[in-house]
Amino acid sequence: MGRLAGILAVVVATVLACPIYGNPPIAFPDIPGYRTLKCDFHIHTVFSDGTVWPNIRVEEALREGLDAIALTDHIEWTPHRSDVPFPDQNRAYAIAAAEARDRGLIVLNGAEITRDMPPGHLNALFLQDANLLKKGDVTEVLREAAKQGAFVIWNHPSWLRQTPDGVARVTPLHEQLLKENLFQGIEVVNQNEYSDEALQIALDRKLAIIGSSDIHAPMAFYYSLAEAEHRPVTLVFAQVKTEVSLKEALRQRRTVVWWKNSLIGRDEWLVPLLTASITAKSDGYVWENSTLSYEPKTTTLNVELQNSTDAGFVLHNISRYRLHNQTDVFILPAHGSIHLQINVREKLPSVTVPFEVMNAIVAPAVHPVVAFNIATGLK
Amino acid sequence: MGRLAGILAVVVATVLACPIYGNPPIAFPDIPGYRTLKCDFHIHTVFSDGTVWPNIRVEEALREGLDAIALTDHIEWTPHRSDVPFPDQNRAYAIAAAEARDRGLIVLNGAEITRDMPPGHLNALFLQDANLLKKGDVTEVLREAAKQGAFVIWNHPSWLRQTPDGVARVTPLHEQLLKENLFQGIEVVNQNEYSDEALQIALDRKLAIIGSSDIHAPMAFYYSLAEAEHRPVTLVFAQVKTEVSLKEALRQRRTVVWWKNSLIGRDEWLVPLLTASITAKSDGYVWENSTLSYEPKTTTLNVELQNSTDAGFVLHNISRYRLHNQTDVFILPAHGSIHLQINVREKLPSVTVPFEVMNAIVAPAVHPVVAFNIATGLK
Amino acid sequence: MGRLAGILAVVVATVLACPIYGNPPIAFPDIPGYRTLKCDFHIHTVFSDGTVWPNIRVEEALREGLDAIALTDHIEWTPHRSDVPFPDQNRAYAIAAAEARDRGLIVLNGAEITRDMPPGHLNALFLQDANLLKKGDVTEVLREAAKQGAFVIWNHPSWLRQTPDGVARVTPLHEQLLKENLFQGIEVVNQNEYSDEALQIALDRKLAIIGSSDIHAPMAFYYSLAEAEHRPVTLVFAQVKTEVSLKEALRQRRTVVWWKNSLIGRDEWLVPLLTASITAKSDGYVWENSTLSYEPKTTTLNVELQNSTDAGFVLHNISRYRLHNQTDVFILPAHGSIHLQINVREKLPSVTVPFEVMNAIVAPAVHPVVAFNIATGLK
Amino acid sequence: MGRLAGILAVVVATVLACPIYGNPPIAFPDIPGYRTLKCDFHIHTVFSDGTVWPNIRVEEALREGLDAIALTDHIEWTPHRSDVPFPDQNRAYAIAAAEARDRGLIVLNGAEITRDMPPGHLNALFLQDANLLKKGDVTEVLREAAKQGAFVIWNHPSWLRQTPDGVARVTPLHEQLLKENLFQGIEVVNQNEYSDEALQIALDRKLAIIGSSDIHAPMAFYYSLAEAEHRPVTLVFAQVKTEVSLKEALRQRRTVVWWKNSLIGRDEWLVPLLTASITAKSDGYVWENSTLSYEPKTTTLNVELQNSTDAGFVLHNISRYRLHNQTDVFILPAHGSIHLQINVREKLPSVTVPFEVMNAIVAPAVHPVVAFNIATGLK
Repeated sequence: MGRLAGILAVVVATVLACPIYGNPPIAFPDIPGYRTLKCDFHIHTVFSDGTVWPNIRVEEALREGLDAIALTDHIEWTPHRSDVPFPDQNRAYAIAAAEARDRGLIVLNGAEITRDMPPGHLNALFLQDANLLKKGDVTEVLREAAKQGAFVIWNHPSWLRQTPDGVARVTPLHEQLLKENLFQGIEVVNQNEYSDEALQIALDRKLAIIGSSDIHAPMAFYYSLAEAEHRPVTLVFAQVKTEVSLKEALRQRRTVVWWKNSLIGRDEWLVPLLTASITAKSDGYVWENSTLSYEPKTTTLNVELQNSTDAGFVLHNISRYRLHNQTDVFILPAHGSIHLQINVREKLPSVTVPFEVMNAIVAPAVHPVVAFNIATGLK
Repeated sequence: MGRLAGILAVVVATVLACPIYGNPPIAFPDIPGYRTLKCDFHIHTVFSDGTVWPNIRVEEALREGLDAIALTDHIEWTPHRSDVPFPDQNRAYAIAAAEARDRGLIVLNGAEITRDMPPGHLNALFLQDANLLKKGDVTEVLREAAKQGAFVIWNHPSWLRQTPDGVARVTPLHEQLLKENLFQGIEVVNQNEYSDEALQIALDRKLAIIGSSDIHAPMAFYYSLAEAEHRPVTLVFAQVKTEVSLKEALRQRRTVVWWKNSLIGRDEWLVPLLTASITAKSDGYVWENSTLSYEPKTTTLNVELQNSTDAGFVLHNISRYRLHNQTDVFILPAHGSIHLQINVREKLPSVTVPFEVMNAIVAPAVHPVVAFNIATGLK
Repeated sequence: MGRLAGILAVVVATVLACPIYGNPPIAFPDIPGYRTLKCDFHIHTVFSDGTVWPNIRVEEALREGLDAIALTDHIEWTPHRSDVPFPDQNRAYAIAAAEARDRGLIVLNGAEITRDMPPGHLNALFLQDANLLKKGDVTEVLREAAKQGAFVIWNHPSWLRQTPDGVARVTPLHEQLLKENLFQGIEVVNQNEYSDEALQIALDRKLAIIGSSDIHAPMAFYYSLAEAEHRPVTLVFAQVKTEVSLKEALRQRRTVVWWKNSLIGRDEWLVPLLTASITAKSDGYVWENSTLSYEPKTTTLNVELQNSTDAGFVLHNISRYRLHNQTDVFILPAHGSIHLQINVREKLPSVTVPFEVMNAIVAPAVHPVVAFNIATGLK
Repeated sequence: MGRLAGILAVVVATVLACPIYGNPPIAFPDIPGYRTLKCDFHIHTVFSDGTVWPNIRVEEALREGLDAIALTDHIEWTPHRSDVPFPDQNRAYAIAAAEARDRGLIVLNGAEITRDMPPGHLNALFLQDANLLKKGDVTEVLREAAKQGAFVIWNHPSWLRQTPDGVARVTPLHEQLLKENLFQGIEVVNQNEYSDEALQIALDRKLAIIGSSDIHAPMAFYYSLAEAEHRPVTLVFAQVKTEVSLKEALRQRRTVVWWKNSLIGRDEWLVPLLTASITAKSDGYVWENSTLSYEPKTTTLNVELQNSTDAGFVLHNISRYRLHNQTDVFILPAHGSIHLQINVREKLPSVTVPFEVMNAIVAPAVHPVVAFNIATGLK
């Protein structure tokens, strides 16, 4: 007995005891009416071709401040099978869900349906029993997923291994699946890869715009902690932070992708996010010493832009006013601010100043506009 | 005698002995046919309303890697006169020139002609004797400067103290001076201030585009060494690094302004500078494992952009190709590089990829385009 | 009239308008019964062999968070005299004092009496009229200073120019001056130079221990803002922040020098400063899972040391306990903390843990000891 | 077949493709006659209670620049057994060794013999077949290890879970094992834990001084990449970089531990390492302007200390000379240098300057001395 207890005591929750080094928490604000949930819906572990135990995915997500992750090991590709001969396709999820219990992270049961192109790979999320997806015909598999109430994402449609020219295309098989509503989202971003064509497909076919890490090794191997890099995530605008609300939000396509320094999404969700991210305030017109001969009464307005997010915004002034202390394109640093002097040329109680946000896109080559109505302090 | 020698020995060339802390050297490449001289043509000392001895301006310039400076103390505004009652308007220049001897820095004798608007302030450079500029009528002063072979710059034409609405305007007096060719340059940038209208005046009237520090206190008071900030400078493209060649280049309007993170200049000089600043190289098309069923033969090209300058370039892809690993707007960091994957969609021996450089301007709201012809390694 | 007013309007308080870049404020805590005033008593301007206008010394001091400075231009060495022919030796002080008015900085009128060795250079502080110190015989000069109530410091007694072997020595002339109490302090630190022998002289002769910048050029030339370097300062422990209280504190020798990463002073003032600088707290003994067979009841104590100062302390554990997570010498970072596990080996309500502070000295090669009495949470 | 090949093609060597983020390579120089091999002899994977696949340990080691690692999963404690039911105790080693092939990393087959105290845990390295160590009696297990030519280390002898007072002690069982030479090394450092008593045991019993990571989760969870932290390693001084030479070096006890900012080892190996790590050079005596009255001929020597290692050395001047520009204790930064002025007080062709290295220890509270013989350039 002493032996057994002794050995048992050896097991240390080393992960819990260690310091919380990791990629810094991702920071974006909520938008009116919705919470902004930071999600990664494409994640692997040793239960397919990944290289970490499922609990590590929970720790990484908590360190990076995520609200939800999906465990999506390949169904058809399990190279560690001889060492990890799991009979239950839900096993990685079960381990991760146990690790996450009461720690504020939603863990979704998922699976990657792994096929040649077409249709390529698809992630089914919110599964009840992943084992039932082990079937030959991919349409049958997706019908089973639909039966379980899954939300399904077409993964990396421009992956060079399956799409050598890098151009995402809706094939006849995809047309058929779309007709049956067998998938509802598309990865516009996967890892280091972005596709204009995938974004256009999302817009044309009314699919959710998704960005995922598709992580296999430890997170820190891919994203430099020293330079505060982050994995691609999908920002989902949900009514509350629950699995049910998350699914509803995905079904309503309320998403924006945060990848490298870019934000990608529908105009209707990206603009509210940008508006919540940047505040513009004025403490009045520029003051200058008045003298008899000069009588300066400046009509140049002091404005402070403040950025509460991780994104460094590339702003393009498209207002009718020029800036007195910047050219028309400048950078508003992440979690920083910039002082602008706006040449209004007249004394007004308020001015409206629109900026094109060059590092955000709402369609291929189309950048959203965020406009600030700024009170000057005059009546 | 011992006493005197002793006291003499007390004088220590403290400046020479101290470590060389200062703003880091400004780095931009030469362009074909010309050396790129980094110049500041607007500088004050205790000999007008500045607060440092002239030798300090030399030290600051050497630390920041400048090639030329002009001492331009106000003629008509000398608030330290009761303590520094200099009779010779060339005195600050003389001290600075002695300090700079054989140290690789060109020091120009200059003076700031300091008047109400119009015509406001003007800097005369390359003066023989600044004392002769102490005259009442400003036109007469400028004729004297012309007689001495000076190059004259209209300073801060949008200065809010003299131009309350911040809009640079050519007045009738300026028209008259222009007709007589009594000034040849205009400050599009002064300190923290930029003017679209001044840029337009420079283009319309064929004036040299100038950016200046107008420094009064020690350099480190205004530009954070900790964040590697820099003063505004004028990059002048001269045949050789001499005073004569510098004047010739100014007369030919071969200038670009480097200010904050912006480059401002005529297209004909800005494009060669950008082309010399960024190199684009490919090591071929993206390689992917080939297998029987996939046979991937990617048509996506690996390209490395390398930036040899202090500017962080905001690049806008306006080519016919989309990027596989960036959206259409991205940042090429100062002295850094970025790896691009370009979706060429076919196998070609070379591709041409134009980018709009958003943080550079060649006219109000107009950004130059730099195009790279990139060999792919195929024949 | 317009002309004059116009010209007058040209004068811009450029220094006031500029951002407040500068060396970061020096941070050390008060000690029981006294305020810790950060002071630099050795400063030059263009009114002797310095290279900045006196107002700049005020700006630099405010940026670095100093409480008091003395303007101490050389009386006998004024190489700018032909350009700055000031008749009044109090002039630099007058300019600086005007600049500092109502800004929380004490400015002292001072002068550097500049002679061959012996006696070398001496700074007289708290002068009423520096002009009266222009006399031939140095003893007479010091008697005049005494008459004015001055506090006098022997400057850089180990300066290699005047003391080629670098060894500070009390000469017969110094003996005579000491006998008359004509100087009361000694620079143990001047610029980049420290002297064990000067420290010993201070201790033996009951002189105030002083460290000074002896600054000539702009501050940022010598101390890297990018690396948060600082000038040498004398920390003076005064009852209140007034000129009177400052003089009283100097007369009572309540000083510690802060130079590079070293603190140098009398044990009676250095130990209270160290005690106020570092706090030690425990949240109890290390907790470990208890099991039947192991029954761990650790006797290792968690302790957090917190450092509220700019100094990185090099601590040497000389307690009877060894550290479980450090060897006996370790660094407590500036404004940082370190977690220690102390092997107490028994359960006690409190422990006393003394550390030798290796980067502080109270006499040549003697380091002060700071001891923490730490409550463990047990009764 | 197409299907199978397609699925096979899915497996991407993601780890190979990803950027090489990781803790920076550990840098210490070779010493005369030996190569300095950086080794971690205590590592876990999913094959016991770790959370990564064995290949990840290889990647982490390569990124951190290690020369050798040992896979040392627990024999008796395998909490993932129900998911990873491996029958072969050599399996983790086999996977890691395959990953490391031809990549310059020595991978050792090891196992952690996991028992109550005494004797606690022991690592057997250089195993032929770890399966043969699955036996009841620990002495029998160690005899089997010895038969296989293993090198055995007593792990974390002061681990608070097994040694509540934190004091490493040689029990009668250990005495017996030592008598039979059944273990040859001892962990003086394990993870975040150091033991003076373990160091003393190593010295008294002629055991190899070992420091190990005992890593369970991904490396980046414990050691901040952003702050360039490193795992504890054992520096082994081997004739060549081979498994055979490594074992010989361990048997000869040629080791130094690198942990946090401390170096721990026998004087005979630590002093050569320090001597190889720091170079001291002089460019002569301090030069000063000579004048008639001063005739300075300084006897203060310029010396530059250069540090080629990751350690920030805390140096204590114990020479007969004082420093002109430092107090007696100062820091020589990692991969940095420091300029010293040494008050030699006479003109000599060379001087010998010994420093105590405070962040290195050769026995509890005993610091090694490194002495530099420095040529002054005089004859």
